[in-house]
Amino acid sequence: MYRSHTNGELRLSHINEEVTLSGWVQKVRDKGFMVWVDLRDRYGITQLIFDEERTPKEMMEKATSLGREFVIQVKGTVIERQSKNKNIETGNIEILVSELTVLNTSLTPPFTIEDNTDGGEDIRMKYRYLDIRRNPVKNNLMFRHKVTMEVRKYLSDGGFIEVETPYLIKSTPEGARDFVVPSRMNEGQFYALPQSPQTFKQLLMVGGMDKYFQIVKCFRDEDLRADRQPEFTQIDCEMAFIEQEDILTVFEGLTRYLLKEIKGVEVAKFPRMQYDDAMKLYGNDKPDIRFGMEFGELNELAKHKDFKIFNDAELVVGIAVPNGASYTRKEIDKLIDWVRRPQVGALGMIYVKCNEDGSFKSSVDKFYTQEDLAKWAEKTGAKVGDLICVLSGETNKVRAQLSALRMELAERLGLRDPNVFAPLWVVDFPLLELDEETGHYHAMHHPFTSPKPGQLELLDTKPGEVKANAYDLVLNGNEIGGGSIRIHDKKTQAIMLKHLGFSDEEATAQFGFLMDAFEYGAPPHGGIAFGLDRLVAILGGQETIRDFIAFPKNNSGRDVMIDAPAAIDAEQLEELGLKLDLKG
Amino acid sequence: MYRSHTNGELRLSHINEEVTLSGWVQKVRDKGFMVWVDLRDRYGITQLIFDEERTPKEMMEKATSLGREFVIQVKGTVIERQSKNKNIETGNIEILVSELTVLNTSLTPPFTIEDNTDGGEDIRMKYRYLDIRRNPVKNNLMFRHKVTMEVRKYLSDGGFIEVETPYLIKSTPEGARDFVVPSRMNEGQFYALPQSPQTFKQLLMVGGMDKYFQIVKCFRDEDLRADRQPEFTQIDCEMAFIEQEDILTVFEGLTRYLLKEIKGVEVAKFPRMQYDDAMKLYGNDKPDIRFGMEFGELNELAKHKDFKIFNDAELVVGIAVPNGASYTRKEIDKLIDWVRRPQVGALGMIYVKCNEDGSFKSSVDKFYTQEDLAKWAEKTGAKVGDLICVLSGETNKVRAQLSALRMELAERLGLRDPNVFAPLWVVDFPLLELDEETGHYHAMHHPFTSPKPGQLELLDTKPGEVKANAYDLVLNGNEIGGGSIRIHDKKTQAIMLKHLGFSDEEATAQFGFLMDAFEYGAPPHGGIAFGLDRLVAILGGQETIRDFIAFPKNNSGRDVMIDAPAAIDAEQLEELGLKLDLKG
Repeated sequence: MYRSHTNGELRLSHINEEVTLSGWVQKVRDKGFMVWVDLRDRYGITQLIFDEERTPKEMMEKATSLGREFVIQVKGTVIERQSKNKNIETGNIEILVSELTVLNTSLTPPFTIEDNTDGGEDIRMKYRYLDIRRNPVKNNLMFRHKVTMEVRKYLSDGGFIEVETPYLIKSTPEGARDFVVPSRMNEGQFYALPQSPQTFKQLLMVGGMDKYFQIVKCFRDEDLRADRQPEFTQIDCEMAFIEQEDILTVFEGLTRYLLKEIKGVEVAKFPRMQYDDAMKLYGNDKPDIRFGMEFGELNELAKHKDFKIFNDAELVVGIAVPNGASYTRKEIDKLIDWVRRPQVGALGMIYVKCNEDGSFKSSVDKFYTQEDLAKWAEKTGAKVGDLICVLSGETNKVRAQLSALRMELAERLGLRDPNVFAPLWVVDFPLLELDEETGHYHAMHHPFTSPKPGQLELLDTKPGEVKANAYDLVLNGNEIGGGSIRIHDKKTQAIMLKHLGFSDEEATAQFGFLMDAFEYGAPPHGGIAFGLDRLVAILGGQETIRDFIAFPKNNSGRDVMIDAPAAIDAEQLEELGLKLDLKG
Repeated sequence: MYRSHTNGELRLSHINEEVTLSGWVQKVRDKGFMVWVDLRDRYGITQLIFDEERTPKEMMEKATSLGREFVIQVKGTVIERQSKNKNIETGNIEILVSELTVLNTSLTPPFTIEDNTDGGEDIRMKYRYLDIRRNPVKNNLMFRHKVTMEVRKYLSDGGFIEVETPYLIKSTPEGARDFVVPSRMNEGQFYALPQSPQTFKQLLMVGGMDKYFQIVKCFRDEDLRADRQPEFTQIDCEMAFIEQEDILTVFEGLTRYLLKEIKGVEVAKFPRMQYDDAMKLYGNDKPDIRFGMEFGELNELAKHKDFKIFNDAELVVGIAVPNGASYTRKEIDKLIDWVRRPQVGALGMIYVKCNEDGSFKSSVDKFYTQEDLAKWAEKTGAKVGDLICVLSGETNKVRAQLSALRMELAERLGLRDPNVFAPLWVVDFPLLELDEETGHYHAMHHPFTSPKPGQLELLDTKPGEVKANAYDLVLNGNEIGGGSIRIHDKKTQAIMLKHLGFSDEEATAQFGFLMDAFEYGAPPHGGIAFGLDRLVAILGGQETIRDFIAFPKNNSGRDVMIDAPAAIDAEQLEELGLKLDLKG
């Protein structure tokens, strides 16, 4: 037996007990006549004590020779500490050691195993197994476990059945981003790894399994933006015989349950916002509503004066920055530089200071009167002492720019409190989205999303205006879940695919099985999927999903610890009927 | 709202309530003046009634025109049935329908959606979504969900943390059977899909996460024996600071918990058997101990007489078939034919009838006396009225043959009762296994398994005799779990890999990260993995794992429903830096 207790377990009530402990050497303090060792495991730290009077000489020497991260086992007696440590749960006791065994030695770790480590991201990723020993990472992984257990409990108690769908499937329409898997048994043929279990969960609905969920890995072979992973985890859900309202109710319930169980936070009924309103008020389909700073559209007020930039703009829109009137000229210039960075892309920014005396001072004073500017203030909700920031240009672009500015200012103003949770349903998404490069429409959600009743006909005439039965759950400015009511009849699905540019042959080859299934009594159904990595990070009050993944990949999709991906044997390639054909 | 209740919910207590139900048309019975429709969903069947007196004519006509598997919604009143149906839970009531809506039509399904269907395996796989509507398949999937929920509950309550390990990893030593995944972002390089999360769970132990589990998909690209799947699910577990005894205790606890919670069966402490004894007594490392028929080795008794076949044999071994003395000559000949089938491969079989009068009648009477045969009976445990079946030949082969015969006879004799559960630990497995084709030894469990203390030195001299800290959990003749105490120091791991034929370079390339990790304070650790598909099937009292998988693949690794694997675009191949190079 390697241990009778963990290192987080012993209290004053254990005094005089003989115990066996195992763990890692966190620290050795050698005072000559006395040696203390901090012994660490997943559960905490226990102090070991060796002293001249009570410890044999050889054991004293052995204790002083212990290095950081050595794995040891000790037997000893629980005694009360002279000077108690209130910072750790075992701080009232220590172990007077009678037996010390080194179970394994350790090289000096490449970074300190402390809450605040001296290791940079790269070295910590390479030695991730050491990084996991640190409390912040370890606690995140345990937190993730807790969240998934609660998700499963809530859904299972609600009659949902977790069904495993296959990982070796068929390449899909978003196929270009599929990871493919050559089959040895079926030479020249490939499986694809699922970007989501979408079609399978719909088939489960056709199969009558009317409440399905699965916590499941999904895969996407795409250029990785910061904080994306080629493999990621979804809480994937689907229900049959339901309408949009049913889905919102059930999964609002799940989210409320998690906030309560995990964070102890009670949230009232989640507000709902139409996609169009979210874009108008926040320039964003996943607005952070922990704070205000809503957009005020100024076209009517700011155009048709002599200011050409605004006159030429499709949209003039501003936000009020609380207490921003006190910004110096230099601070404002920095803000203008910030919005002109290529990542944001604004050409410039107009500002209006709402002075304490009720007057306005703006960078466009020669074009606008005090009365004009007062109307801007009213429209943007600016109060005395605020600063109005105004951007202009092409609607979609300027909204994105002002949204970025709004988030940045809120961050600087401390308005994005990670302990405040502000969920929001965004509903009535457009069905289609124009790809500005190709001029083609593609599905905003996915090709299985149903249009709003009666809008199918609009597809031919005004495709961009068709609304979908699609919804996103937004939490603190992040999309944590999204879903839709699906098409469940072959005819509508065929029309939809045709509008997305699939020929009949392509539609049949890729989705024939689903459209066939729709002919055998497909029930009305819909669902939602949550991004687990993101959800866990937000619930954990953090930004980076990587910190909640045991073995994440870097921005090039590499696992730097195991050094994957890597070349494979020529023999293995040959067996798969493949040859390398590198582009150079 | 599509329904106020499910079709398994309504009772006499609901009489006179107005309800809304949705589901599939199971059956329409049209008596002219009266029409009954059985409405089905996941939860059960509810009878709908339409009659001349109370139902408008158009609705009567609509009801009679409903086809099998149409999806309908009805509103109506719960009334008491005239003739109750005791076979279904809603059998006391029926619904007098006031509103009938067809939500979707259905083509005639290619097989009947009944517990006993007329559909063969192939057609049911192609239309798996219809197969899932059938109770046997649906119930299996729900049963699987229940088992996984209980597994997670037990382990989580025991302090285990579920950690997701990556699916996109690096090709491993058993690499030939790895599925590989070309990376678009790292041209010419490949990930591999895990055959198990083995190295990652060991790294988690190095990382201090001392109780890990995961219910996880694993992948193996091999020629599929019947009832194997290229993707399968494991309950994967690992613990640190433990010895073999700890693992056996925890996972015996898990198995006992499942048998109790899921099957209501209480099982006493699981027996343990050494691998060598299992081979000797049952010819098999996963013996079915629901019944006896243990092997009796007869070398000492049967050799050195004049029977050349036995004299030339390495092993002569028999089993007693209860009440087999009554078999006719013809029945025995059939048994002999059975063991001579190529799948079994025996050259012949000697038999001894233990007659009611205490005499023996054998097929080798001219070589052996009654006293000789009496000793055979004693050795095999044969009683009056039994039949002794004796095989001979090369030890490993003859054991496998007699084991097959034992299982076949037990099946015929009804001794393999699916409602009886006989778990067994098989321990002390050999570390290495001789590959008879190549003459090389390979790891019987895997290269990370530790030899028994003090046996490392034997590797050079008697590799076949080294025992491992490895164990299997056997249930009713199936290996449901297997594991080992791992090597946790670099030196031992290097010796082990060298003995398995890895050069230093290969060892470093493939396992450098693990051996590096062992240098930074790796704790003693070990684990186990359960085959979930098999475990669920056995708990469900069935043989075929495919029946417990929502969307299984066939013996060629194909999903016949979605038609995967399939060819992919030339463009996609090019983007991956690959070219087809088919062998013809």
